Amino acid sequence: MRRRSSIPRKAIYRLSVYLRCLDRLKENAIHSVSSEALATAAGVAPAQLRKDLTYFGQFGTRGLGYDVERLARKIRDTLGTTRLQPAIVIGVGNLGAALISYRGFAPAGFEIIAGFDSDPRRQRNKRFAQSILPMGRLKDFVRSHRVKIAILAVPATAAQDVANHLVTSGVSGILNFSPILLHVPEHVIVNNVNLAIELENLSYFIKS
Amino acid sequence: MRRRSSIPRKAIYRLSVYLRCLDRLKENAIHSVSSEALATAAGVAPAQLRKDLTYFGQFGTRGLGYDVERLARKIRDTLGTTRLQPAIVIGVGNLGAALISYRGFAPAGFEIIAGFDSDPRRQRNKRFAQSILPMGRLKDFVRSHRVKIAILAVPATAAQDVANHLVTSGVSGILNFSPILLHVPEHVIVNNVNLAIELENLSYFIKS
Repeated sequence: MRRRSSIPRKAIYRLSVYLRCLDRLKENAIHSVSSEALATAAGVAPAQLRKDLTYFGQFGTRGLGYDVERLARKIRDTLGTTRLQPAIVIGVGNLGAALISYRGFAPAGFEIIAGFDSDPRRQRNKRFAQSILPMGRLKDFVRSHRVKIAILAVPATAAQDVANHLVTSGVSGILNFSPILLHVPEHVIVNNVNLAIELENLSYFIKS
Repeated sequence: MRRRSSIPRKAIYRLSVYLRCLDRLKENAIHSVSSEALATAAGVAPAQLRKDLTYFGQFGTRGLGYDVERLARKIRDTLGTTRLQPAIVIGVGNLGAALISYRGFAPAGFEIIAGFDSDPRRQRNKRFAQSILPMGRLKDFVRSHRVKIAILAVPATAAQDVANHLVTSGVSGILNFSPILLHVPEHVIVNNVNLAIELENLSYFIKS
């Protein structure tokens, strides 16, 4: 296996897509798949698929295709989602509330175990399975539950301060929904999801 | 100005980021900005910023920097968000409900004018400023309101059918939250936001 940092970031996204295709094959009781069929399902060129999988070791058997179960397990190992990983949501407004209850995280191996908010008791038209805790309890919680991943859904004005607080508490991966660029130490990874920017981008391409 | 298709997609994302920085400068009553300062605020290299802006025509005045107001207006023109654009949300579950009420779209120039759901009357612990309409009314609504942009938040199993329906109704930009790859005609643009994949990606990079 190559060194972690030498694998292109986009290849790791594609691994996630392959994993979803494999999970669908499993649901349909399909046990082996050719690289051509898997590539088509994932929407990539077969050569791309084969190249991506070699980054993570040798999976296929020439002429027999891939064992669906085994390849899925190997990808999960590589992504580090074999066991359920705890994650927290910071900022329980409109969007944060939806993210706490979002059902799409669990199948991918993530469990949202708590929400944090500067005003945990504010009126919300919603009940949660998880506790909504005050920011003052963040550091202890992150440490005792060994939380590495946080989803940041606070207003832009608060985002950098909260990110600093997360980092000093021990979080090393932030999924950032706030519309600002976060400055974090090198060992921390930030993935940005900027919904307004996604729409702007569409707008540009559909302008007539 | 170059042909639309020759501008790299990533440059258009960066334009959106520059626009947010300019808006913050405006709020702070700052009227002109050097390319170095704007690049730093946006988190890119000054050479990258200058290159990006030349894709869209000549904005700067040598030695004087950029006029904040004028550059922001030019970027909005380019992105097609000078006037408020209507958009709709399809699938008013947990995530769709949050997107309908999301306050971050309006400042970027988008107005969510309705939601659509296969069961518009299902129990939701929430009231919306917009109407939630049945899917049967989609086509007429899209045509009469000239909607070009739709946000897709339906389950994976329904996503392709709904996307087909959107395309035949006249939508040409889809922000897709469903975890599948959509097949659409060439004139239609799809941007994918896959929240679970974003977390998996973080997970890979923080694996110790």
